[in-house]
Amino acid sequence: MSTSEQKFIDLMKQITAYSEAIALIHWDLRTHAPKKGMDQRSETISLLSEKVTELQRSDLMKQLITELKTSNISPIIEKSVQECERIYNKQKNIPTEEVVEFIRLSSKSETAWQEAREKRDFSILAPYLEKLVEMNKKFAQYQGYTENLYDGLLNDFEPGLTTEILDRVFNQLKPVLIKLVKQINNANVTVDASLLQKPFPKQAQEAFSLAVLDKMGYDFDAGRLDETIHPFAIGINPNDVRVTTRYDENDFRTAVFGTIHEGGHALYEQNIDPDLHQTVLAKGASMGIHESQSLFWENFIGRSRSFWESHFKLFKEHAPDSFQSVDFDEFFKAINEVKPSMIRIEADELTYSLHIIIRYELEKELINGDLKVKDLPKAWNDKMEAYLGIRPENDLEGVLQDIHWAAGDIGYFPTYALGYMYAAQIFNAIEKDISMDQMIRLGDFEPIKAWLTEKIHRHGKMKQPLELIEEVTGEGLNPDYLIKYLTNKYTDIYQL
Amino acid sequence: MSTSEQKFIDLMKQITAYSEAIALIHWDLRTHAPKKGMDQRSETISLLSEKVTELQRSDLMKQLITELKTSNISPIIEKSVQECERIYNKQKNIPTEEVVEFIRLSSKSETAWQEAREKRDFSILAPYLEKLVEMNKKFAQYQGYTENLYDGLLNDFEPGLTTEILDRVFNQLKPVLIKLVKQINNANVTVDASLLQKPFPKQAQEAFSLAVLDKMGYDFDAGRLDETIHPFAIGINPNDVRVTTRYDENDFRTAVFGTIHEGGHALYEQNIDPDLHQTVLAKGASMGIHESQSLFWENFIGRSRSFWESHFKLFKEHAPDSFQSVDFDEFFKAINEVKPSMIRIEADELTYSLHIIIRYELEKELINGDLKVKDLPKAWNDKMEAYLGIRPENDLEGVLQDIHWAAGDIGYFPTYALGYMYAAQIFNAIEKDISMDQMIRLGDFEPIKAWLTEKIHRHGKMKQPLELIEEVTGEGLNPDYLIKYLTNKYTDIYQL
Repeated sequence: MSTSEQKFIDLMKQITAYSEAIALIHWDLRTHAPKKGMDQRSETISLLSEKVTELQRSDLMKQLITELKTSNISPIIEKSVQECERIYNKQKNIPTEEVVEFIRLSSKSETAWQEAREKRDFSILAPYLEKLVEMNKKFAQYQGYTENLYDGLLNDFEPGLTTEILDRVFNQLKPVLIKLVKQINNANVTVDASLLQKPFPKQAQEAFSLAVLDKMGYDFDAGRLDETIHPFAIGINPNDVRVTTRYDENDFRTAVFGTIHEGGHALYEQNIDPDLHQTVLAKGASMGIHESQSLFWENFIGRSRSFWESHFKLFKEHAPDSFQSVDFDEFFKAINEVKPSMIRIEADELTYSLHIIIRYELEKELINGDLKVKDLPKAWNDKMEAYLGIRPENDLEGVLQDIHWAAGDIGYFPTYALGYMYAAQIFNAIEKDISMDQMIRLGDFEPIKAWLTEKIHRHGKMKQPLELIEEVTGEGLNPDYLIKYLTNKYTDIYQL
Repeated sequence: MSTSEQKFIDLMKQITAYSEAIALIHWDLRTHAPKKGMDQRSETISLLSEKVTELQRSDLMKQLITELKTSNISPIIEKSVQECERIYNKQKNIPTEEVVEFIRLSSKSETAWQEAREKRDFSILAPYLEKLVEMNKKFAQYQGYTENLYDGLLNDFEPGLTTEILDRVFNQLKPVLIKLVKQINNANVTVDASLLQKPFPKQAQEAFSLAVLDKMGYDFDAGRLDETIHPFAIGINPNDVRVTTRYDENDFRTAVFGTIHEGGHALYEQNIDPDLHQTVLAKGASMGIHESQSLFWENFIGRSRSFWESHFKLFKEHAPDSFQSVDFDEFFKAINEVKPSMIRIEADELTYSLHIIIRYELEKELINGDLKVKDLPKAWNDKMEAYLGIRPENDLEGVLQDIHWAAGDIGYFPTYALGYMYAAQIFNAIEKDISMDQMIRLGDFEPIKAWLTEKIHRHGKMKQPLELIEEVTGEGLNPDYLIKYLTNKYTDIYQL
């Protein structure tokens, strides 16, 4: 191995080490940390984050990238160099003072967002959001985007993704979803989820959640399950990938489907090839691919009829007496209730993508078009009414519900909907090799986990998201599989 | 504020931030971390520790120390500069390659210690220990010690402490303890702790432990209680000082007295003056002073008759039925049973210091005298027999029981006994201001905590340990108070 190669590996190890400390601090802050300790902790996060950035944009990094690009190196080093170069170029192009300004502004904006929510008054957030939109445009320009600035933002969250692709797939998806929602609203079948909303002690929910994680193949020697307020999965290192969940004692769905969802994320990072550990590739390929793994498990497996055929008995073993008389069919329908909601994070799998499409259309117009920040609330409400048939009564259940824009993240939302489309497409691909319905009905997830590991998980960031999808499924992003899946499932449940 | 002062403050903030991340990782490794993640985590610890050392011995540090020593600076900066200079000089004097060699050797030695324990064969550890003894001697020489090298090691763990002081106080303490143990062995009164060794569910122990911590004034908004194998308290920052404990379901004493002990450590760090936060002074004055705070609470309060007069009811509320008929006097005697034990960490408060004196005498002879490592086991066993009247049957219950020497820590043990003497001396001082017996019997610890904060806790490392003891108690280290306390207490319990 050349000296440059060794130096580059050491540099990645250092970045990995700082990132590992940062990840542990984040996990701790959101699970265990006592509140008074948080102020000083955030200074520690800042320092460690600065160190990561320093290394990423260091002269040594630049030099090693230059040297290694023309050397004879292994595929792992080659891809690592590409990833480091991508980050280097991105950071190099943005003046440091503007990065600092952006962080400062985002922080203030988040505070304003909190206040705006309390007072249900979007105008408190608006001036910050205007500046954040302008800075985001500028950042895209620094990356060399001139015409379609929003493409620059998309590319940051999902390398290779463009408005051209999103317009195409969303234009296919949107009318189908709108039509299905309308049909369901007019259907004769009523689905009633209230039968699920009965007291279910936290400890019993936890025991069932742990049992399901275990069946999924989650490795408890390389992770753990904790309680939190806003659930997440976090890879502290690939042998320590933690899942968190929230227990609502009057609605077990929050914890159970939340745990399966986060468990899907965690399986991804637990099964990255050890050869990639301590490189910049030991992460999921992209936000969208990551989300495909969580949704694959949560919805395509976890909300399927066959899953509950194999797990209903286990569920009842953990559930209180009041659930013992619940009928299987009623239960299955209830966990798949479609009910247009004002709030994205409470949405069912059918309407969820419509929430995302609304945000996509709005943020694209903010960046590339003529939409003004001040006009956002009305534009939001109009789209909600047009697509979901409901209109928010105030901004709290409208444009103020998500923190993303207030935090400066524009171009992030689409990855959620991508996750759905990728997941459906992957499910279709896996069915060519494995009889999914049968395996899920048997509760035998080992072959499924092995397939996902072989085709997706082990590769980490070795492949770009769209390249990975093409390889795994034999075609590019195609919304038809999601359309087919949702149409079949809900036509059946609601007898459309 | 001068530029140098600002730079120095920033440097300390950086050191604090790295140390904070390291502390959180240590806490996590010993409470929550899944086992497979530990390998990579230890690389992260190494990197962060290296960064701390780099800053401590950096040219910038040297320059700032030089500049600030001759400047007009605040007392906090002045003491901080002194502490940084102490660390700088210590590190500067030891060649880097020897530090690396020492770390490598200690690590191998710990592994050998494990193996030696399994095979009950000291000779497996001996060669490593010989080298560690030699390196420790060399390190003391680097610090400028020529005659009394052991003083150099002592000074590292307890600044200002010398063999002269220890010889004097241990020579006073030792005969009294030996005599008391003999008297108790021959006493007519028998104390039976087996009445405490009854099943006591973990959750109930935890609830009682939490209640006691709360009464002590431990701030749960700036800390938490977790389960571990080898309990400890750790200050991640002064507003996040965590306590851990171990639950033995057949002996509640482990958890309850362990929690009070660690709670005493934690109160110290929670109550350091905010002006010292993020400086190198935001820690306890020394190992010995720290231990005095844990022992003060564990023994001088927690094992006192008056404490249980105010807490016996609370105890019974948490204890299972089998404890309800236990008589108060029997209970009080049982928690103060004296029973010479082979194992230091299982020792009672009377015999504990004898275990320490044995180790002190042996390690002093290893460094300053003619004792050879190969002769340690016999020397150990002889002293056990002479001081405690029992002789280990193998090295596992003899010289192999503690990890300290195998980890390269020589000069550390005395701080445990110092803690006892300091605690007794502080208890005597506090009684001049507060009617301790009355306050403890009322269960009103607020004035006690306030006194300790005012006199000790808030000062952090602003004062040297012996300087602090002198200020707080009006005299230097004096073992008479411990002697008097133990004599009175055990004369009473065993009717000597």
